[in-house]
Amino acid sequence: MAATSTTAAVIGIGPVGSLAALGLAHKGYQVSLFDFRPDPRDINDVNLRSINLAVSDRGITAMKYVDQEMADRLLKGIIPMYGRMIHDLKGNQESQKYGLFREHINSIDRGKLNEDLVSEVERYNKSNPENRIQLNFKCKFTNFHADDSGVTIEYSDAERMKRTAKFDFVVGADGCYSRVRSALMKYIRMDYKQFYIDMCYLELSIPPGPKGSFRIDANHLHIWPRKNFMLIALPNGDGSFTSTFFGPWKLTESLNKKELVEQFFSENFEDAVDLIGMDKIVEAFLDHPKGALMPVTCNQYHYSDKCIIIGDAAHSMVPFYGQGMNCGFEDIRVLLQLLDKHDQDRKLAFDEYTATRHKDLLAILELALNNYYEMSTKVQSPRYLIRKRLDGILGRLIPKYWIPLYTMVSFRADIPYSDCIRIEERQQTILKGLEYALVAGATLAGVYLAKRR
Amino acid sequence: MAATSTTAAVIGIGPVGSLAALGLAHKGYQVSLFDFRPDPRDINDVNLRSINLAVSDRGITAMKYVDQEMADRLLKGIIPMYGRMIHDLKGNQESQKYGLFREHINSIDRGKLNEDLVSEVERYNKSNPENRIQLNFKCKFTNFHADDSGVTIEYSDAERMKRTAKFDFVVGADGCYSRVRSALMKYIRMDYKQFYIDMCYLELSIPPGPKGSFRIDANHLHIWPRKNFMLIALPNGDGSFTSTFFGPWKLTESLNKKELVEQFFSENFEDAVDLIGMDKIVEAFLDHPKGALMPVTCNQYHYSDKCIIIGDAAHSMVPFYGQGMNCGFEDIRVLLQLLDKHDQDRKLAFDEYTATRHKDLLAILELALNNYYEMSTKVQSPRYLIRKRLDGILGRLIPKYWIPLYTMVSFRADIPYSDCIRIEERQQTILKGLEYALVAGATLAGVYLAKRR
Repeated sequence: MAATSTTAAVIGIGPVGSLAALGLAHKGYQVSLFDFRPDPRDINDVNLRSINLAVSDRGITAMKYVDQEMADRLLKGIIPMYGRMIHDLKGNQESQKYGLFREHINSIDRGKLNEDLVSEVERYNKSNPENRIQLNFKCKFTNFHADDSGVTIEYSDAERMKRTAKFDFVVGADGCYSRVRSALMKYIRMDYKQFYIDMCYLELSIPPGPKGSFRIDANHLHIWPRKNFMLIALPNGDGSFTSTFFGPWKLTESLNKKELVEQFFSENFEDAVDLIGMDKIVEAFLDHPKGALMPVTCNQYHYSDKCIIIGDAAHSMVPFYGQGMNCGFEDIRVLLQLLDKHDQDRKLAFDEYTATRHKDLLAILELALNNYYEMSTKVQSPRYLIRKRLDGILGRLIPKYWIPLYTMVSFRADIPYSDCIRIEERQQTILKGLEYALVAGATLAGVYLAKRR
Repeated sequence: MAATSTTAAVIGIGPVGSLAALGLAHKGYQVSLFDFRPDPRDINDVNLRSINLAVSDRGITAMKYVDQEMADRLLKGIIPMYGRMIHDLKGNQESQKYGLFREHINSIDRGKLNEDLVSEVERYNKSNPENRIQLNFKCKFTNFHADDSGVTIEYSDAERMKRTAKFDFVVGADGCYSRVRSALMKYIRMDYKQFYIDMCYLELSIPPGPKGSFRIDANHLHIWPRKNFMLIALPNGDGSFTSTFFGPWKLTESLNKKELVEQFFSENFEDAVDLIGMDKIVEAFLDHPKGALMPVTCNQYHYSDKCIIIGDAAHSMVPFYGQGMNCGFEDIRVLLQLLDKHDQDRKLAFDEYTATRHKDLLAILELALNNYYEMSTKVQSPRYLIRKRLDGILGRLIPKYWIPLYTMVSFRADIPYSDCIRIEERQQTILKGLEYALVAGATLAGVYLAKRR
């Protein structure tokens, strides 16, 4: 099958939608993009969407798969983060490296990436005038109808007029409250689950130092781990940090008076108060909206050769592993590769996508949920640190046979998420055995030495 | 708070919606009912909705709670079913009683119940001209908007004109694909889960014998248990039986040729073929739509004092415990009692409803899922039958302290579903111990007798 005469509607002009459109266009598909929002380059809403993004191997691999040169341009401004910087209650800082060989995740501005990808669509259009990607902003997708002849999408345009347009297939990349997913549910028996974890988030900001300097180390993801709540901060190119507070709803909503916020932050995040400024913190807690965290899973992801959903529309996850966008980008690479494998036969490619991708998506959702506990609590546990050290020693000694979990998830796009969990389970069993052996060895040595004395 | 000046929109004129409207009206609320379908009494679609209903204690208790006389009228034509009639492969029939004291569930025609409840609404209106329940058929609810002043519902009327109407609160009783639930999700952080079990159903019918006689025992729920598929039949007032085939999708869809259906039914349900007629069976498999089974759970069930969902809209379950409608009716009783308890303060009543009802709804969904295995397989297991006999002996000996699970669920509206599970777990532990004791006793007796010989 040839892609060149095949038309696709991609719903959602966020990072996943734009990259999907570019990927499909490079394969020859005729792509139209739709989003209910205006062009992100026309609006001044830096950090409209909370939580800075960390782009790592899976995201980068997918971007390069779509277009190597584009990836190089997009990744120019990213800031490498080699590890976590743990801030304890006394303001002491301790670096914990992410990788064993200076691998790093990268802080990237979500708003800027979004804008850059739209610019990349236009750059693509200039180079490929015969197969332009149509950009339809302020066009609100409402529904689709599929039959043997194709898919008719319904949307209201910038003038709020109701419109329809016909395509061969539709790609839903319209986020965790996806309307494409809702429409898809009418065509397939979709298992679907959404649940809210008892945690909200609130965005703060650490302004740059003199002459755009960084006031804390630029090459770390900073964490103030406080068990059932925490603060994090990711660097931006201008010397500032985007900081996010995570805490249970009840606790966070109880901080509803100036004095309460001041007391809470002074007690728990004294050094962060110096960086952010108490006024700004109070303002955020009293006036800014609090974000909810709603993981979403579903199965299956497609209807015949007519519709498929990717990114947050198919699997919204909590942000604690920094994999949300990386996973969405990986969806695109996996899908494009399957289309190639099946010679652009969408039915076969979509079927295999659902059949093989589901276990990996469940795996990363689980990893992301579990990682809150690691970030907020375990990073300060002596036992965790010992095991992490052992893990690291083995990873350096026998790197082909031993790969720490974080490395697999963040730096090894060639290892599917579900394999990361499987391999890690085996490694943890071995680590536990080693621990026992070490303790036993130390005890025996102690007994031996005591006897010699 | 007084109910008399409070307006309520009830969405869905199925059994649960109609009973809810009547219940609220009796308390003094001003109720309007909406449904996208026409008046059920105007259309000739007996058994439009599959699977006959079995009404038991919880449903009856709720109907009586709303209006004792109405309940008597509605329950006049029901047919008591005292047990399961198991049909084995050879056509032998074996009765297994449901209760220990001639308790029974009751077969009721869903279509007729639906129509009767609408007639009850009109009867109520004649007796209460000052507080009539508005019946709005062919009015399709699409959305609601809530603010401090109330709830504005959006719907399209019989002429497909868009309309709005304002109420103090809205009750969603619009079934498992509930639009009220979708609208509610925008106001609360609702956990939601739907999943399809790998099973479909197909409706068949056993016609009456001469002069409206029943061709198999009228006072049983008939089951042809065949492990991963089964056939059931429930009696109707005219001597016919509504019969339903349940089987995995793949198997059922593979029966797509006359010869295949004939062979399958001859091999597995020979006596049922005589009752239903092979032509009708083939017609059903080749031409009739197959139904899906999609359990739905969510939490919470309400937004402030503005909206609450009940019945299948809040908890769709598989039909294997015959509790779907009974549970929906129980929702109404529980809700009305909470409104009374809190002096019609809806906020307090709805809060307590969500807080206390959720565990019971999860419990009955689980019980219903597990009961497929009991109906299709366990009813023919010798071990199950021995344990059931022990269960029955204890239930008769010490009825205050020992109540078989089926009895608790179907005949004891005073025991919440979640308590049924809790109590049954304890009883099963004791039964297991008794079994061991019996086996040990028998062995010892055997040894003793052998020695004496």
